[in-house]
Amino acid sequence: MSGGEIRERDLIWRISEILGGVDNDDCALIEAGERYLVATTDMLHRQTDFPDIMNPWQMGWMAVAVNLSDIAAMGAEPFGLLMAVGLPPEADLYFIDELFSGFRDCAAFYGTRILGGDTDSHQELTITGTALGWVERYLVLRRSGAHPGDLLCTTGSLGGAGGGLYAWQEERLDSPFIEKLLEPEPRLKEGRALAKSGAVTAMMDNSDGLALSLSDLSAVSRVGFLVYEERLPLAEGLEEMVGRQRAVEMALSAGGDFELVFTVQRERLEAARRACKLTVIGEAVEEGIWMERDGERRRVEARGYEHRIGKFGNRK
Amino acid sequence: MSGGEIRERDLIWRISEILGGVDNDDCALIEAGERYLVATTDMLHRQTDFPDIMNPWQMGWMAVAVNLSDIAAMGAEPFGLLMAVGLPPEADLYFIDELFSGFRDCAAFYGTRILGGDTDSHQELTITGTALGWVERYLVLRRSGAHPGDLLCTTGSLGGAGGGLYAWQEERLDSPFIEKLLEPEPRLKEGRALAKSGAVTAMMDNSDGLALSLSDLSAVSRVGFLVYEERLPLAEGLEEMVGRQRAVEMALSAGGDFELVFTVQRERLEAARRACKLTVIGEAVEEGIWMERDGERRRVEARGYEHRIGKFGNRK
Repeated sequence: MSGGEIRERDLIWRISEILGGVDNDDCALIEAGERYLVATTDMLHRQTDFPDIMNPWQMGWMAVAVNLSDIAAMGAEPFGLLMAVGLPPEADLYFIDELFSGFRDCAAFYGTRILGGDTDSHQELTITGTALGWVERYLVLRRSGAHPGDLLCTTGSLGGAGGGLYAWQEERLDSPFIEKLLEPEPRLKEGRALAKSGAVTAMMDNSDGLALSLSDLSAVSRVGFLVYEERLPLAEGLEEMVGRQRAVEMALSAGGDFELVFTVQRERLEAARRACKLTVIGEAVEEGIWMERDGERRRVEARGYEHRIGKFGNRK
Repeated sequence: MSGGEIRERDLIWRISEILGGVDNDDCALIEAGERYLVATTDMLHRQTDFPDIMNPWQMGWMAVAVNLSDIAAMGAEPFGLLMAVGLPPEADLYFIDELFSGFRDCAAFYGTRILGGDTDSHQELTITGTALGWVERYLVLRRSGAHPGDLLCTTGSLGGAGGGLYAWQEERLDSPFIEKLLEPEPRLKEGRALAKSGAVTAMMDNSDGLALSLSDLSAVSRVGFLVYEERLPLAEGLEEMVGRQRAVEMALSAGGDFELVFTVQRERLEAARRACKLTVIGEAVEEGIWMERDGERRRVEARGYEHRIGKFGNRK
């Protein structure tokens, strides 16, 4: 059985066992006085992670954004990133300038900066970003903590990045979904405000698709989820472009949206609403992951962004 | 001009300019109350960074060790690492077990641990480690700070990893230098003790070779160095294996030794000696990097580990 064939969960379980920990979150948590230091790392490759039409500035932006999204998912505030870059032989100075400007601009957009890094030569462009942040101990949000009866919510809209992928494959390069795919905007402000609201019980990002996020939240919180199909906030214009069924499928399983998916105590929904714009898409139940349409329920498969093997994390 | 052809210094200068900072150290420094958080990242590839004879456990050990060496060079104490791994299709479960055990064992050997990480699929094994540590503000050691007249010192011996590379190429696989090459031991204890000694003015590691370290220290501290050839602590048995001239060349330019190179105030040499075993190999001078033998001086070229493009770092 090779790396490509090993099932994600088996691999993550094995790695967690070897490393002596099993808690999985978007970031590792390190105790530091009254705060936690949160830290996360993500490796991206030219062929598997960056659509062909992406320019080098967008690759830089993306490599920073994916890591900041993990910081957002903990309710934390970023204070810097390290970027390790394997540069291919064809990378010229223009490419390098644009790539590193993309790093800088995405970090600056979110009030943070690139602290340092490493560069070397590699056949294929490979970028590993590491983001660091702080969060007060009493504010940290984790994948664990959801209880049956909690409301299931999401920021923003769903399926837009999937629509971008579709538009790209259909060569409809003027589609507004393309930018959504190429220049994602992680929800740092929203994550922080939700943490401060005191209303949220569990949270993560949906960068690999909503279905995988629900599967992960479900496994760690030991709850199930029921999603009401008609409540999914489909990205504007998505249904018109691809039809209802495919739009719902994209909202569930397409990666790249970088929204926050979280559970809220029912009686505190108003506090969560004051924190940021959100949509209630369902609720936490005892077990299983279900989608309901016209009163009928079907099981949701844990499918999402295919290249992912997965993140692992553990803490003291 | 492509990534492979761009001169290291030009590239690092350009990147520093784009990112808005120029301080280069082994780690980025982040203010955190009375301490600094230190953070460093290193990307390693199967073909360019791991000798063919390395087993997967040793690859794991190495990927952690290179990062801990950067923590050591700041006088800091590590508190954890993140490991991002691109696994090639041929990586089976045995390989994965051994690799991650290597991560775990190297971290544990130095009293620290793997906090989390990321795995995905890639054509070639690629590992990016990120190490995090703490150092008191008043103890931190940097590449800047050396003054003319300071004594130039190194921990341990020099050229052993170069000897390992030679023995490997000569197929002398029973050579004790092979282990030195494949299982490096960063000088964390020594780095910490040297920081506490109050005697050290500047420090970095020599993972890319002594000559490159001197070049880097020279550039940041704005001093020169004079090295006395007969004082170089050549690894035991190296001269017998490769001859005097080649042994000296290896001590200067071969990468992989992971010793600490540092400058000490002359009047505090005894305090540094109490901190750890060290060899005085020369002194800081006004300008240039020189090697003296039998009263004759020659310039030392800034040559070292060839695959490196380089690290960049900046701080507030």
